[in-house]
Parts: sequence; C-alpha cells; structure tokens
Amino acid sequence: MTAHVITISREYGSGGRTIGELVAKELGYGFYDKVLIDLAAKKSGFAIDYIKNTEEQVTPNFLFNLAANGYYANTVFVNDGLPASDSLFIMQSKIIRELADKGPCVIVGRCADYILRERTDCLNVFVHAPLADRVARAVKDYGLPESGAEKTVERNDKIRAKHYQYYAGAKWGEARHYHLTVNSSAFGVEAVARSIAGAARSFM
Amino acid sequence: MTAHVITISREYGSGGRTIGELVAKELGYGFYDKVLIDLAAKKSGFAIDYIKNTEEQVTPNFLFNLAANGYYANTVFVNDGLPASDSLFIMQSKIIRELADKGPCVIVGRCADYILRERTDCLNVFVHAPLADRVARAVKDYGLPESGAEKTVERNDKIRAKHYQYYAGAKWGEARHYHLTVNSSAFGVEAVARSIAGAARSFM
Repeated sequence: MTAHVITISREYGSGGRTIGELVAKELGYGFYDKVLIDLAAKKSGFAIDYIKNTEEQVTPNFLFNLAANGYYANTVFVNDGLPASDSLFIMQSKIIRELADKGPCVIVGRCADYILRERTDCLNVFVHAPLADRVARAVKDYGLPESGAEKTVERNDKIRAKHYQYYAGAKWGEARHYHLTVNSSAFGVEAVARSIAGAARSFM
Repeated sequence: MTAHVITISREYGSGGRTIGELVAKELGYGFYDKVLIDLAAKKSGFAIDYIKNTEEQVTPNFLFNLAANGYYANTVFVNDGLPASDSLFIMQSKIIRELADKGPCVIVGRCADYILRERTDCLNVFVHAPLADRVARAVKDYGLPESGAEKTVERNDKIRAKHYQYYAGAKWGEARHYHLTVNSSAFGVEAVARSIAGAARSFM
C-alpha cells in the first residue's frame, strides 16, 4: 500500500520542510506545517504570535517552571489547568489526528510520528544534515544573520530534541524510531524527496 | 556521482546481509561479508574457527580483560602485543581499505563505515527492524532454535553495539552517523535494496 500519512521530523536547516513540500507535491498529498499553529491558535483562542514565541524560544520545562511558580494568568491555562505548552501540545495533537483522518498528507514536525503512533499507515521520516551545511542553509534560505547562526541552529535542535523527549519520551534522531532517516546533504533535497515518495509507495 | 562503496551496518535478523547482496547485484558491485574473516584469517595465520568464535561470542572488553590478566599465549598476540580482538580489527581494517581501493563494492558489517570514514565516496547505511520480525527471520532463515531465539538476537545486537562503540567511539544506530537508515520490515528487503541502489546513484 502507499503510506497514508508521511511525518517528517527534521534537524533545523536540513531542508526537511522543503523536502516535505516536494513529497506532498509528488504524491498529490496535503501538506501541513506552521498552518497547524494557526489552526491550534484558532481553536484555543491563543494569540498566534504568543504560540509562535512559545514554540521557538521556550522549552516545555521553562513553561513548567513558570507554571510552578504561579506566573500564569488564568487565560494561559486553557485545558484543565495544564501548563500552556502542554495544552498547546494537546490541541496540536487533536488537529494532527483530524488532518490524518481527513485525507492523505505530509506533516512536518510537531511530534506527528508520536501523535499518530497507533496508525499503521504512517511513514515516519527523519531528515538530518551536517551542522555546517545546515548553518549555511539557515543563513542563505532562512535569512539568519551569519554571526551567531551556528549557535541559533544548535539551540533550535536542542529545543526540538527536548520537546520530543518531553512529549514522546524517546530520543530524537534515533534511527529505530523512524522507518527512514536520511542525510539531505548526501543526496540533495530533490533526490531525498523522490526517495521518500518511492518509500511511501513501497510501504507495507 | 554513484557511491563507490556502500557500507551496510545492520541489526541482527534485519535482513541487512541479503539487502547488501541485492544492492551489489543491482549495481554490479563486489560484495563482502564473512569472506573478510577468511581473508583476515589467512593474512594473520589465525585459525578461521577461532576468529569466528571470537567475533560471535566475545566482546572486546572480555578479550581485553583476558589480556590484562595474562591469559593469552604469545600466539594470540599477533600485532605488537595488542589483544587478539584489536589485532583482528586492525587486520580487517587493512583488508577493508584494500577492497575499497580495488573496486566498487558493498561491505556488510565490520565497522566499515568507520574504517572508511576518510573516503568521500562511501554511502553508509544502517538497516534495522522491530525485534519480533528479526526473531522470526532468525528462526526461519538462519535456523536459530525457537526457544531462546529472542535472547540470542538481543545478545548479538548488544555485541555489535559494544563493538561499534569500542572501535568507532560512537553510538551504533544513531541516525546522524549514516547517510541512510531504514526499517526493513516497513518496505521489505527488495524495496529497501532498490532504494539503497537508487540512493547510491544520487550520492553527491
């Protein structure tokens, strides 16, 4: 069968998002990435900017600490008094499950592999690349200032790894968690996308 | 360019060896696996059976301990007084480098990815599969007795992981160490072999 959902986890700057778009295009699948944040925000009533800031700059532990210290106003606890990041995760999880039910799609990030772990029709992919290549891509394609770019890339990866460990309880980037992992620098984003689409078609 | 050498590391029972043979066949490459042991043995003068037993049942640390305790006779220290497993590794390394120089090939196991790390024309692959599938394959294809098969599979993986950690100084099965990792159960050995051959042709 062809995999119904393809989840792509990716190191920052590895081109995973672009690869996801190419795969979706090749297979004629839906594609979901930051739009999830917007959907989550609309459902929760959170301000989109607030969520974006939370996702990019704050680790779950940090929010937990804030919560533990009583810094949150009631407006931040939207779900049974859970910390904001946990509530956000629960909302994103619901949306991801709805999207997967709705039709074939590619979902980038958001621990989608873990959230959809009970489905047997998900192909889970991890995209990585050597640090130097990712820094170069972040500067060239994402407009990151050259000075301090390496630190930003490394920090973003640390946040992603912590986020995955916290919610999925597993090590981010461990081969056994994924059906396929690929170094995008070794083949280029187009070849990787073709390879993932091919793998999706061979999925058992 | 097409990758000149393809190294395949694999969990025990994942079908990695069969996949390697299929890749070599598809690309018209040489294929090397246990034959390396024989070559190593011939070069070193070790008895083939002794090396096979060492590789399959003993971890480097065990041999190290034996060496530290003076259990080795002179015949076992074949290279500058190193423990037998280290001497064997050095011999295998030499042979692997010679094979890679000789012509395009697929090499299964033996830390070949690490040994050939300075070449830029090596595609490094890791093949894994869920434990239950690997146990089933080990029983069906390798003739392992059903009783105790799971323990044997797990023990063989532990030995491989220790061996890799000891010689390559890195974690076996970490996605970032390989250009490609793949769950053979998700696609089947034929599809995985096609996918690896395709990746070899797209190697940059």
